[in-house]
Amino acid sequence: MKILVANINTSETITNKIRSVVERIKRTDTEVDVVCPEKGPVTIDSSYDEAYAVPPTLELVKSAQESDYDAILLACFCDAGVEAAREISSIPVIAMEEATYAVALTLGSKFGLLTEKRERMAMKERHVRRAGLLARLACIRALELSTADLDAHPEETKRRGLALAEEMVVKDGAEVLILGCAAMAGYGEDLQKQLGVPVLDPTVVAFKYAEMIADMGVTHSRVGLYSPPLPKEFN
Amino acid sequence: MKILVANINTSETITNKIRSVVERIKRTDTEVDVVCPEKGPVTIDSSYDEAYAVPPTLELVKSAQESDYDAILLACFCDAGVEAAREISSIPVIAMEEATYAVALTLGSKFGLLTEKRERMAMKERHVRRAGLLARLACIRALELSTADLDAHPEETKRRGLALAEEMVVKDGAEVLILGCAAMAGYGEDLQKQLGVPVLDPTVVAFKYAEMIADMGVTHSRVGLYSPPLPKEFN
Amino acid sequence: MKILVANINTSETITNKIRSVVERIKRTDTEVDVVCPEKGPVTIDSSYDEAYAVPPTLELVKSAQESDYDAILLACFCDAGVEAAREISSIPVIAMEEATYAVALTLGSKFGLLTEKRERMAMKERHVRRAGLLARLACIRALELSTADLDAHPEETKRRGLALAEEMVVKDGAEVLILGCAAMAGYGEDLQKQLGVPVLDPTVVAFKYAEMIADMGVTHSRVGLYSPPLPKEFN
Amino acid sequence: MKILVANINTSETITNKIRSVVERIKRTDTEVDVVCPEKGPVTIDSSYDEAYAVPPTLELVKSAQESDYDAILLACFCDAGVEAAREISSIPVIAMEEATYAVALTLGSKFGLLTEKRERMAMKERHVRRAGLLARLACIRALELSTADLDAHPEETKRRGLALAEEMVVKDGAEVLILGCAAMAGYGEDLQKQLGVPVLDPTVVAFKYAEMIADMGVTHSRVGLYSPPLPKEFN
Amino acid sequence: MKILVANINTSETITNKIRSVVERIKRTDTEVDVVCPEKGPVTIDSSYDEAYAVPPTLELVKSAQESDYDAILLACFCDAGVEAAREISSIPVIAMEEATYAVALTLGSKFGLLTEKRERMAMKERHVRRAGLLARLACIRALELSTADLDAHPEETKRRGLALAEEMVVKDGAEVLILGCAAMAGYGEDLQKQLGVPVLDPTVVAFKYAEMIADMGVTHSRVGLYSPPLPKEFN
Amino acid sequence: MKILVANINTSETITNKIRSVVERIKRTDTEVDVVCPEKGPVTIDSSYDEAYAVPPTLELVKSAQESDYDAILLACFCDAGVEAAREISSIPVIAMEEATYAVALTLGSKFGLLTEKRERMAMKERHVRRAGLLARLACIRALELSTADLDAHPEETKRRGLALAEEMVVKDGAEVLILGCAAMAGYGEDLQKQLGVPVLDPTVVAFKYAEMIADMGVTHSRVGLYSPPLPKEFN
Repeated sequence: MKILVANINTSETITNKIRSVVERIKRTDTEVDVVCPEKGPVTIDSSYDEAYAVPPTLELVKSAQESDYDAILLACFCDAGVEAAREISSIPVIAMEEATYAVALTLGSKFGLLTEKRERMAMKERHVRRAGLLARLACIRALELSTADLDAHPEETKRRGLALAEEMVVKDGAEVLILGCAAMAGYGEDLQKQLGVPVLDPTVVAFKYAEMIADMGVTHSRVGLYSPPLPKEFN
Repeated sequence: MKILVANINTSETITNKIRSVVERIKRTDTEVDVVCPEKGPVTIDSSYDEAYAVPPTLELVKSAQESDYDAILLACFCDAGVEAAREISSIPVIAMEEATYAVALTLGSKFGLLTEKRERMAMKERHVRRAGLLARLACIRALELSTADLDAHPEETKRRGLALAEEMVVKDGAEVLILGCAAMAGYGEDLQKQLGVPVLDPTVVAFKYAEMIADMGVTHSRVGLYSPPLPKEFN
Repeated sequence: MKILVANINTSETITNKIRSVVERIKRTDTEVDVVCPEKGPVTIDSSYDEAYAVPPTLELVKSAQESDYDAILLACFCDAGVEAAREISSIPVIAMEEATYAVALTLGSKFGLLTEKRERMAMKERHVRRAGLLARLACIRALELSTADLDAHPEETKRRGLALAEEMVVKDGAEVLILGCAAMAGYGEDLQKQLGVPVLDPTVVAFKYAEMIADMGVTHSRVGLYSPPLPKEFN
Repeated sequence: MKILVANINTSETITNKIRSVVERIKRTDTEVDVVCPEKGPVTIDSSYDEAYAVPPTLELVKSAQESDYDAILLACFCDAGVEAAREISSIPVIAMEEATYAVALTLGSKFGLLTEKRERMAMKERHVRRAGLLARLACIRALELSTADLDAHPEETKRRGLALAEEMVVKDGAEVLILGCAAMAGYGEDLQKQLGVPVLDPTVVAFKYAEMIADMGVTHSRVGLYSPPLPKEFN
Repeated sequence: MKILVANINTSETITNKIRSVVERIKRTDTEVDVVCPEKGPVTIDSSYDEAYAVPPTLELVKSAQESDYDAILLACFCDAGVEAAREISSIPVIAMEEATYAVALTLGSKFGLLTEKRERMAMKERHVRRAGLLARLACIRALELSTADLDAHPEETKRRGLALAEEMVVKDGAEVLILGCAAMAGYGEDLQKQLGVPVLDPTVVAFKYAEMIADMGVTHSRVGLYSPPLPKEFN
Repeated sequence: MKILVANINTSETITNKIRSVVERIKRTDTEVDVVCPEKGPVTIDSSYDEAYAVPPTLELVKSAQESDYDAILLACFCDAGVEAAREISSIPVIAMEEATYAVALTLGSKFGLLTEKRERMAMKERHVRRAGLLARLACIRALELSTADLDAHPEETKRRGLALAEEMVVKDGAEVLILGCAAMAGYGEDLQKQLGVPVLDPTVVAFKYAEMIADMGVTHSRVGLYSPPLPKEFN
């Protein structure tokens, strides 16, 4: 099977990081291309960034239709552009945030989401509400460390992340943790051992999810929400 | 007071139509500019169209910051680009769909939404779910007439629209009707008389809402969902 | 346009206070009458008080039908009597609590409500649940200062109100604050500056809302929830 | 045990009917007084009627505090005045609509409500939403026969009621039926036999519920929603 | 009337304790049999325990069909086996947890649940969600004392229970408390006095509820969720 | 990887059918054992059947702990016994109904469920409510053909199934269909082509889901809902 992973920001560093993760975890018989758009924001931290990242990402999805991909993974834990991408794609489009939530639902009663910044918590909650899954959300908590702090004090970062995660499990009743927070990405296994709950790395989960969907031979619905757009004049 | 109405598609015809509506209904002391982006789709019927309409619309919002507008109305009954626009705007940004729902909530127990096409019904329901307002939604129904039909048979259009609206009130329990359907725009008053329910034209409602917000001197929250984005590198 | 503001308690002091607020904020071309019933409780702090306040208020609404009012605002942040008033009124009846929630929905992801007394928190939550808006409620918090304290220690009141409001924003995720608490009424602007969130004073919001509805020429639905009552024999 | 049943309308006929029902179904050791207010509407069909019925009903509740009642049942399937009554009563106040819904929840997955008039359906749904029970409501349907019809054609009434009830079970998935409809009151047993679902007569259910609560020795909470009102000046 | 109380665990001690409670609180004219299965777990603390307790309990329900019971109460605050029992029973089957929640709904705005162990909190919340009652749940809190502690330090248990219950009322807004926690069973009245909220002992509430249902002459629905199973071949 | 598929009924025919499906769809490197309990009902059509099927199924789960399975799939579209199985299993336990719903959430806005019998519809809805997913459920509809009909008239079955499925898509707004209905199992591809929506066969979906979970190396949470049971005395 052949999967296209489209990072939606334009950072080569992040694209390479994603590539190295999926190369490591992919099935031996999975072929994978990891790409990013040429134009657009280098990182995505706001709806504003998303707005400019989506059109170039859609161009990637359009070109992919000519190739023999079995699935396309939009690799951003924000699902920007997913509806539009599905409208124009006969290849299944996997949404990283949506797929991670779906898997979390099957591993415990409620999930907790660890993010980097307070500012993005409301958008995350809005996404969960939009998906109709509020009753399964235990909490969203933010690490709130500056990038400078993260780089300068990895031990401190880990310590704070562990403390925060423990509160999410013990106080908020999270039975599954989602690491929506790059700074903690390396500490998933430690968290898992220490807290006894599954800890989900969205990149890993969504890529495995993409392989599963491709394997099932099923595509997102083309009726209703993702109906193909009519031909349209553009200025 | 001075209001910017930004149509998000690039149709001059539609922009002119909006201008003529708001010129007619505005307070005498309201100054209004009605504009549309130069680039982008001529009409908006899909998430795909929305994706390409948003960045040029954001440029309009950015320029508006330099002027002395008291409110900016994004004039599309789909609220595309609203989050991003609010992030970058210290001037209140009014969302047409959101404002219409808010007003509908105060006029009756449940509202019904009349749209043009079946294909957009799921997206509308998703927006209502995202807003957490499902318990107040009576129904979404689609007129399902081709543009050709609409033009050729205005009487038939009106007849079908009235029949549909009556079902929404009698069968679905809608106490307020929202005309999310340009083809029926002229028939609001007839509907209102015939069915005894308020019938909301989103352009009218959202423009009056914009005047109200400007008048109150309040702006959308700049904490949380609409936090200003950090400066960001673009490729 | 001409608006009737009906305070539902019988306090002249409060009625005068409301009058002075609406006189200050009304459009220049708005004519306004601010009245209160002759009989009934002097303040409203319970469902018991509401029960006795409603019939005299309905008499005000009935007389108003003879006049040329464009809207009637029931000026109590509890919406007592609103359904009955709408049933008998062909003039739009604006509900202060309902209108404030509607506006809050369009300014941020979730709103927080600051009240005076713990005892009324459950009733407030019940109103939000009745309106189907629980998913948008961040929190309800009570100031819990006795009237004596409020009068004797205005600085202390302000300090505690600010501290409470800050917790609502930072801990509870409120992006919009509603001042359902007369003691803090004067401090809205300070709160707004200090916390970066819109702070809504229900009297202001609901009056501006009433002007908007009158301006739109729309009335609450007379089908369903607010159907006109049949003539009825009384003992 | 001793129970006060307070009909909240002023109809002697209805009060006598309620008395005859509760006299028939009460435990042998239950003493019961069935009363109605002297002033107020003769029947209750609107929020307007409710508004005028409540204060005289509260006077009944107040006087009852002096007596040795073990429970007070407000005998109107609309729960008007219940919050206020509980605030001023140290004797448990039973709400007919609320108690019927509570019992319905324990007899099947979802309940259906049969009412007399379309106009009251929205208010009923609003009550269910206020109680947070929408997920358990199968449907609300109205018989829609004029009183003249009901009197003139009892067979036709029964036939239509049965047909309607069958649709509620078969199409809407109601597993429990509530007869919120005096015209059908005599046909509960026939419905029950024919459809195989429990059919609840609110007067019976709520009176038995009142006996149970009295028997348990428990009272509604006096903290929060039903906190006793403070002494208050009245004009 | 004659009621069968079926404890679903096999502990004689607990069965005797239940018997002594119901003997004390039953109406004088109620006949009661309190039994437990011969086979199965001695106490129920997990879904695993429940799985093995249910089939022997169903045998008790089957035999009861031959007798003249007016109601069967499954006496476990977990409602294990209730659906199956109702499917095979033409005698009303009362579920202890479900009945307690139903009664709690009629005594205050929101209820709080006090349990013994953190581990069971998620299952409790799942039950409330399954019942569609989340909007009425204030909180679930666990006492978290080992059995050894409970036995050795009754005063400490009571002190901690009271402190916990107070937090549930003051911080979480619980207006009704449910003692889903045997260790606190004796302290209900103290709690009630101290906190001013009704405190529900599920054994008492559910038994009184069973008497009420028997008295009403109503049975759970045999259509839909509790449809009688078809004859079935077993290996 | 090695997966245990545990059919929870005791039918050899059904077990063989499941085996043939999973043998056909499994990855080439997946080893699979398909088993069923020796004791228990031959088919599962009620909560009563489920109650007797669960303990023998748990014995299968217990024995599996000694082997080197990477995942255990409980192969019944009712998820009976899943909580108990997870409590005692350090190997991930996959629930067929839960996994199918999770996948459906990622393929369209709302899913529709096609079942065999009206009687099971309420239980299905209850499961969706328990999972907190009601907002994503478009409809549950039943084929309602007797087994005799199904066998005698396969063409008629297919025709009715297609007609029903079309209504689910066109009238109810289902964008994804779940075939919870063995009689239609062979017609998934036809439905998919004809209606343009993904059609999910739970056996296929859940098995692929099990492979994915095994591949991810993640297990259900052992904290909260699925906490390991304490050692327990049994009679």
